[in-house]
Amino acid sequence: MAPVKVFGSAAFTNVARVLVCLEEVGAEYEIVDIDFHIKEHKGSEHLARNPFGQVPAFQDGDLILFQSRAISRYVLRKYKTAGEVNLLREGNPGESALVDVWLDVEALQYDPIMNLVFVQHRVVPALGGTPDESVISESVEKLRKVLDVYEAQLTKHRYLAGDFVSLVDLSHFPETHYFMGMPYAAVLDSYPRVRAWLEDLFSRPAVKKVVSLMAKDFN
Amino acid sequence: MAPVKVFGSAAFTNVARVLVCLEEVGAEYEIVDIDFHIKEHKGSEHLARNPFGQVPAFQDGDLILFQSRAISRYVLRKYKTAGEVNLLREGNPGESALVDVWLDVEALQYDPIMNLVFVQHRVVPALGGTPDESVISESVEKLRKVLDVYEAQLTKHRYLAGDFVSLVDLSHFPETHYFMGMPYAAVLDSYPRVRAWLEDLFSRPAVKKVVSLMAKDFN
Repeated sequence: MAPVKVFGSAAFTNVARVLVCLEEVGAEYEIVDIDFHIKEHKGSEHLARNPFGQVPAFQDGDLILFQSRAISRYVLRKYKTAGEVNLLREGNPGESALVDVWLDVEALQYDPIMNLVFVQHRVVPALGGTPDESVISESVEKLRKVLDVYEAQLTKHRYLAGDFVSLVDLSHFPETHYFMGMPYAAVLDSYPRVRAWLEDLFSRPAVKKVVSLMAKDFN
Repeated sequence: MAPVKVFGSAAFTNVARVLVCLEEVGAEYEIVDIDFHIKEHKGSEHLARNPFGQVPAFQDGDLILFQSRAISRYVLRKYKTAGEVNLLREGNPGESALVDVWLDVEALQYDPIMNLVFVQHRVVPALGGTPDESVISESVEKLRKVLDVYEAQLTKHRYLAGDFVSLVDLSHFPETHYFMGMPYAAVLDSYPRVRAWLEDLFSRPAVKKVVSLMAKDFN
């Protein structure tokens, strides 16, 4: 089987999300860097893969995909038969529905907040600007509301979708990894169950591997 | 089989998304209104269904779900065996992956823009405020970029995920229905394929039915 291809550097959180799934299932894959400095992401070759000119894109033979969570679902389905990994729970209608629920929470509630903080703290200064502290503090307040819900859920269950690890948990790691290196990460100290869940998550070999790839690429 | 329950009024686009799926598969369902005026959405009973205090929530026996797209997936899987309807394409790995891709596009790129416009045009004046026209015009500019991609996709395929109608197309209708009643809807005139796709979508009996429920509830 020819290795699947992931277009985009591991330093992008949306790329890292796909990579951790590939690592979890032990798939053979190739990372193809897209050079943003020469606007390769807006070139016709990349736009044919991802019409929004974003990363990641993904190729498996003739099939081209984009959107990190959709690619992650595809990867976890494709390689499911290869091992014990069952990160979508698709055999069980209730459990797979709860994976869908909490993956939408991550995508629509958690990730946008994390992304706003990341842009202000890392991207704005890198472009010579000054972070808007009010955007950061409003975002941290919104984050608290989400973490209140997570803490309650993780008091009832070991993982977000239930007592099983799933794509939901993995999907949180890339943005959270960057956030944990920022001064605002102290907010997590008020949430012991969330802290324990993150420690568990970051101890997974697949997550450790992708964290090392992110560090190498981030500059 | 006891009817499933949907909590929240059809006037909410996220509720309408679930209802159209139930209509498409011919499921028996009951709508349970949540009274926002008396803050029922923040009461303990509703928070047990949806910890973020939002609508919709959904109940099928002991299973409680929230997040409209996750509920929609569950509904389309549950009733799939009942008829010819195949709006997730789960039997086909490539097609179902493309449904996931374009559903994420709807959720993460299209819907947030539509939502910003709706809030400024309908919610802000209803609360006695003045719409921020710059937010609206920036949103319409962003919408054009998304519609450029849609027009190209709908030139290649009859529907967004391919040559088959899917949850992706249905999922666009609630926000688009409100948008089409606003002066900014003229932007759609530059996109003939998008226009034809929407006409096709709004001619579906399930969509017509839910549009009538939305009108009844919107006040």
